[in-house]
Amino acid sequence: MAQVSIVMGSDSDMAVMSQAADVLDKLGVTYEMRILSAHRQTDELVEYLKAAEDRGIKVMIAGAGKAAALPGMCAAIFHLPVIGIPMKTSDLGGVDSLYSIVQMPSGVPVATVAINGAKNAGILAAKILAVSDEKVRAAVEAMADDMKAEVMEKDAKLQKIGHKAYLNA
Amino acid sequence: MAQVSIVMGSDSDMAVMSQAADVLDKLGVTYEMRILSAHRQTDELVEYLKAAEDRGIKVMIAGAGKAAALPGMCAAIFHLPVIGIPMKTSDLGGVDSLYSIVQMPSGVPVATVAINGAKNAGILAAKILAVSDEKVRAAVEAMADDMKAEVMEKDAKLQKIGHKAYLNA
Amino acid sequence: MAQVSIVMGSDSDMAVMSQAADVLDKLGVTYEMRILSAHRQTDELVEYLKAAEDRGIKVMIAGAGKAAALPGMCAAIFHLPVIGIPMKTSDLGGVDSLYSIVQMPSGVPVATVAINGAKNAGILAAKILAVSDEKVRAAVEAMADDMKAEVMEKDAKLQKIGHKAYLNA
Amino acid sequence: MAQVSIVMGSDSDMAVMSQAADVLDKLGVTYEMRILSAHRQTDELVEYLKAAEDRGIKVMIAGAGKAAALPGMCAAIFHLPVIGIPMKTSDLGGVDSLYSIVQMPSGVPVATVAINGAKNAGILAAKILAVSDEKVRAAVEAMADDMKAEVMEKDAKLQKIGHKAYLNA
Amino acid sequence: MAQVSIVMGSDSDMAVMSQAADVLDKLGVTYEMRILSAHRQTDELVEYLKAAEDRGIKVMIAGAGKAAALPGMCAAIFHLPVIGIPMKTSDLGGVDSLYSIVQMPSGVPVATVAINGAKNAGILAAKILAVSDEKVRAAVEAMADDMKAEVMEKDAKLQKIGHKAYLNA
Amino acid sequence: MAQVSIVMGSDSDMAVMSQAADVLDKLGVTYEMRILSAHRQTDELVEYLKAAEDRGIKVMIAGAGKAAALPGMCAAIFHLPVIGIPMKTSDLGGVDSLYSIVQMPSGVPVATVAINGAKNAGILAAKILAVSDEKVRAAVEAMADDMKAEVMEKDAKLQKIGHKAYLNA
Amino acid sequence: MAQVSIVMGSDSDMAVMSQAADVLDKLGVTYEMRILSAHRQTDELVEYLKAAEDRGIKVMIAGAGKAAALPGMCAAIFHLPVIGIPMKTSDLGGVDSLYSIVQMPSGVPVATVAINGAKNAGILAAKILAVSDEKVRAAVEAMADDMKAEVMEKDAKLQKIGHKAYLNA
Amino acid sequence: MAQVSIVMGSDSDMAVMSQAADVLDKLGVTYEMRILSAHRQTDELVEYLKAAEDRGIKVMIAGAGKAAALPGMCAAIFHLPVIGIPMKTSDLGGVDSLYSIVQMPSGVPVATVAINGAKNAGILAAKILAVSDEKVRAAVEAMADDMKAEVMEKDAKLQKIGHKAYLNA
Repeated sequence: MAQVSIVMGSDSDMAVMSQAADVLDKLGVTYEMRILSAHRQTDELVEYLKAAEDRGIKVMIAGAGKAAALPGMCAAIFHLPVIGIPMKTSDLGGVDSLYSIVQMPSGVPVATVAINGAKNAGILAAKILAVSDEKVRAAVEAMADDMKAEVMEKDAKLQKIGHKAYLNA
Repeated sequence: MAQVSIVMGSDSDMAVMSQAADVLDKLGVTYEMRILSAHRQTDELVEYLKAAEDRGIKVMIAGAGKAAALPGMCAAIFHLPVIGIPMKTSDLGGVDSLYSIVQMPSGVPVATVAINGAKNAGILAAKILAVSDEKVRAAVEAMADDMKAEVMEKDAKLQKIGHKAYLNA
Repeated sequence: MAQVSIVMGSDSDMAVMSQAADVLDKLGVTYEMRILSAHRQTDELVEYLKAAEDRGIKVMIAGAGKAAALPGMCAAIFHLPVIGIPMKTSDLGGVDSLYSIVQMPSGVPVATVAINGAKNAGILAAKILAVSDEKVRAAVEAMADDMKAEVMEKDAKLQKIGHKAYLNA
Repeated sequence: MAQVSIVMGSDSDMAVMSQAADVLDKLGVTYEMRILSAHRQTDELVEYLKAAEDRGIKVMIAGAGKAAALPGMCAAIFHLPVIGIPMKTSDLGGVDSLYSIVQMPSGVPVATVAINGAKNAGILAAKILAVSDEKVRAAVEAMADDMKAEVMEKDAKLQKIGHKAYLNA
Repeated sequence: MAQVSIVMGSDSDMAVMSQAADVLDKLGVTYEMRILSAHRQTDELVEYLKAAEDRGIKVMIAGAGKAAALPGMCAAIFHLPVIGIPMKTSDLGGVDSLYSIVQMPSGVPVATVAINGAKNAGILAAKILAVSDEKVRAAVEAMADDMKAEVMEKDAKLQKIGHKAYLNA
Repeated sequence: MAQVSIVMGSDSDMAVMSQAADVLDKLGVTYEMRILSAHRQTDELVEYLKAAEDRGIKVMIAGAGKAAALPGMCAAIFHLPVIGIPMKTSDLGGVDSLYSIVQMPSGVPVATVAINGAKNAGILAAKILAVSDEKVRAAVEAMADDMKAEVMEKDAKLQKIGHKAYLNA
Repeated sequence: MAQVSIVMGSDSDMAVMSQAADVLDKLGVTYEMRILSAHRQTDELVEYLKAAEDRGIKVMIAGAGKAAALPGMCAAIFHLPVIGIPMKTSDLGGVDSLYSIVQMPSGVPVATVAINGAKNAGILAAKILAVSDEKVRAAVEAMADDMKAEVMEKDAKLQKIGHKAYLNA
Repeated sequence: MAQVSIVMGSDSDMAVMSQAADVLDKLGVTYEMRILSAHRQTDELVEYLKAAEDRGIKVMIAGAGKAAALPGMCAAIFHLPVIGIPMKTSDLGGVDSLYSIVQMPSGVPVATVAINGAKNAGILAAKILAVSDEKVRAAVEAMADDMKAEVMEKDAKLQKIGHKAYLNA
């Protein structure tokens, strides 16, 4: 049974959205992934959102670009946390998606991450689950340790070979 | 029976939205005005939008601010033209509302007017009706003539009294 | 006889503008396409705009980039609806075109769509005609159904093969 | 014992940040509020963040303006969810605060809400707790019902007295 | 006979545009001022622009706000220099006016000055006339000397009384 | 003897700046081209600017990118018209150059053209000379006629072969 | 003898610039303050900048607004550090000043602080002197301690009286 | 013993940051380079910053992208000057990094250079050292002379061969 639902409005967003799925895999969190458009199939989306909680979904990750209504619509219907990912756009760089997702009116928050920040959306979903799930919490902490180790390893390599060799490697 | 539906997400938008109503009054176009929030009462909004065409609504004017989903949701469900008005916002000046309304994904257009451009939204609704309604078309042309006359009158006054007197008047 | 006029200021906009023509073809709406520059041949443009309505044009689609005056000039002279398409620009991404088209002064609305949103401009033109043309209305609804079916098909494929296979396909 | 920690970098942010506290009060969520500056007292902040989880804090709400480092520093050290509130700024409207909070690098998400969106931050914190706390979940749903009722009441009033009377009231 | 024509689209721009007139008065340059809207009375504007050169107009100063087409239309028809003044706007600060004026397509330049920069537009018009008018050239140089003297006087005062007294004065 | 001086701060701007030279060649206007940096050789620049008018320079075209001080420094010293060209930049698209050139303080105007608008800068320089040079004026008008003819030819081709063939050609 | 020179282009910047002076007073650093315009009195500015180092100036603080050339011109001539303060502007909020100061071309850095960040400019100047002046270094550290103490005091007050009483105080 | 510390949050910034190192090499200034993430290893960063001054570091150069907290954290702990380099970002061009670094709150300045301006950061560090190090000061002046000579050489070449040959070379 999926704990997290990953929804996107178009399959053109899937390459980015998959990074959320991949990090959830690493953290041992179950998920389902759906293509559901707020603007092209409103009824199906509303129905899906109303049923999600009963199906066990605890957090929703929604990605959309341009005039990105999907995350806000999820937050309007689903009572548990919704994370929004603004997609980068070819003309405005994603600032249109960002404003459409983060500037939600009072009463209906969307937890917005960076433009194309799907990996962070996955980690945030896990952190939310970690509030009541010790196993996920431990996985989140372990991932933070790994990231720290990775940076320290790179710094050690830099101290050893210098920046010219590092860049040429 | 109303030909145009004017919808807004919050009564804080009413002072601006009323300018659309006022210009429709002048152009002899009937309308109804509703407060319907995409994020706070999705079911009621969807139901209203599905029934609108059968109730005789031919054009919809939707105004919203910040992460403004309302115009796009109208366009997702209502098959006839939807005009969007981005509300000015106190922090970003309305560029958030503008992007959330104008940058609609392919397939679901919203006819966007200027930030706080409710008067123009009313005129645009009338122009749309004017395609098949000779009376409205004549009213639109008369209003254009009036605007032209008004500018010419002001210019005549300027030629007569000069800019210093004009500004002091 | 054309119902819709598609005008652009330069043939460099034609690849984008053709998407409006293509969608009108699919929706069974007749159109003509013209290259007419507001800044390089004002007299010819004005003459064309004044004659358009008598020639049967009911909606105008105007695309332009940078300091994009063409859509506004169309709306100044042609009394029926004018749809504006802001062209993407290489330096400012099209935000210059967008502001030049959407921020029209009071009295002269341009129904603005997204940056490079020519397909949506075509659909919007059809929706405007659909107010009084049942056949076009049906075509618009059928296209919406097709878009919805397409999304649902993609979602079904995703459920079947998973996102990794989907992305590799 | 507080479940939510509300931190701000300066008491000039307190008027906005208090809206998060007020909504938590309404939703029956306990909280503590602290003034802790990432740039003026790093040691104290780090110490506070390291101890927070053991003291029972489950969600953190951090507000900051301009080059707003506080929410990111919270997310760097505290392993459970951190919500960021970009403060409106007098020169750039808060877009500086927004970018400084939402554009977090990979690995360290901050759940960002709208500029000055402290009320939404409070609701989001409650939604996060609601994943494992049925009582908070019920309070969140009740608040959504209240907001819906409030909009419907306003709409009913509008239908009854019309927009002119409504605006004059 | 006027050497410079100052045109604006609306009398709401007159307070700013008058600063151009005032500086031309000081520099001994003759001018006329007109309210002529590109969008509300295209025919009259075109006619005025075509006749301007024969009436002795050598430079045109055009101010407009929002989707500001007026300066570009002037430059499209009038063969001598056109100076554009982007008006400050209440929502976007004038960046919409600026882009609508400065980003002119190839072939039709508008000499753009700062947002609300009407005084500079007047000086620029005089500098253009100064190319072939020794008297205006001398007046321009004298004005530059005056500005320099004014700054030096202020600096001398600052050196004498210090910044605290200066600010209290 | 050169009538126009074309200056740039770096030879990396030369490809763009040459378009100003090319159009001046076509219009029969003489020019000189210099690389002179406001920030790297202030003395030489100041000396050049002070001597320019006596050497017969009547208009200056200055192009620069990023924090573009060159056009403003030219306008500070040279008493006749200075045209500024904001260079496109790889990070901010040229909006940094644009603001640095167009937003000149009161008293020191720079006639700003579009980002990378060197061709328009050349035409504007010619228009300025045309105020007192009938031959240049005729060349400017002829170029406008040519541009108009070119657009009409393209439109005629479009009417003849249609947009699909046009795009494939 | 002044160690720091505070220059501004106009006395309208003095209220902001004085905050730099005030903080230098507190830190025991000597300074002089001048009104010197890059665009209105280039010769005097150049002369001042060339002589500054011999007069004992070790750091320069330059504030300017809009197309702000002054800090860059200082950095072009003065070989020791130049700190730039972008002034807030009424139309663009100061983003024009910011870009004009921070985006300096390669070879001529300006140490840019926040919009209207004159206090920080003063502290930065002191930090630069502190590299070789133990007394200033101690003063900088003491000021940091004071700021920290002030925040901790405010937090203590908040813990004692709560946010409601704090806001009402 | 290093005088300058060059720190970055990720090795993806090293290609840019190395330009600071290269210019310090040319100017005879010693440096060390570290990868230290504010968000991934706060403890190690804090420890490094506290020890830096005793280890002889006199100036710090910190580069970071997006929600760039690193330079500000350095300035919060290290009492001597910190120079910040905003990294160009693929979506927002680096304006996010710029705002996150330059808009520092009162009391904690970061000397910000241009987006990707690592070379200028190196020169600025040297200029800061030059306040009390005559040898570095001479090196800075010599580099300025070289840059000037280089521009003059290019200008001489342009005068000799003309812009067409120059561009083809």
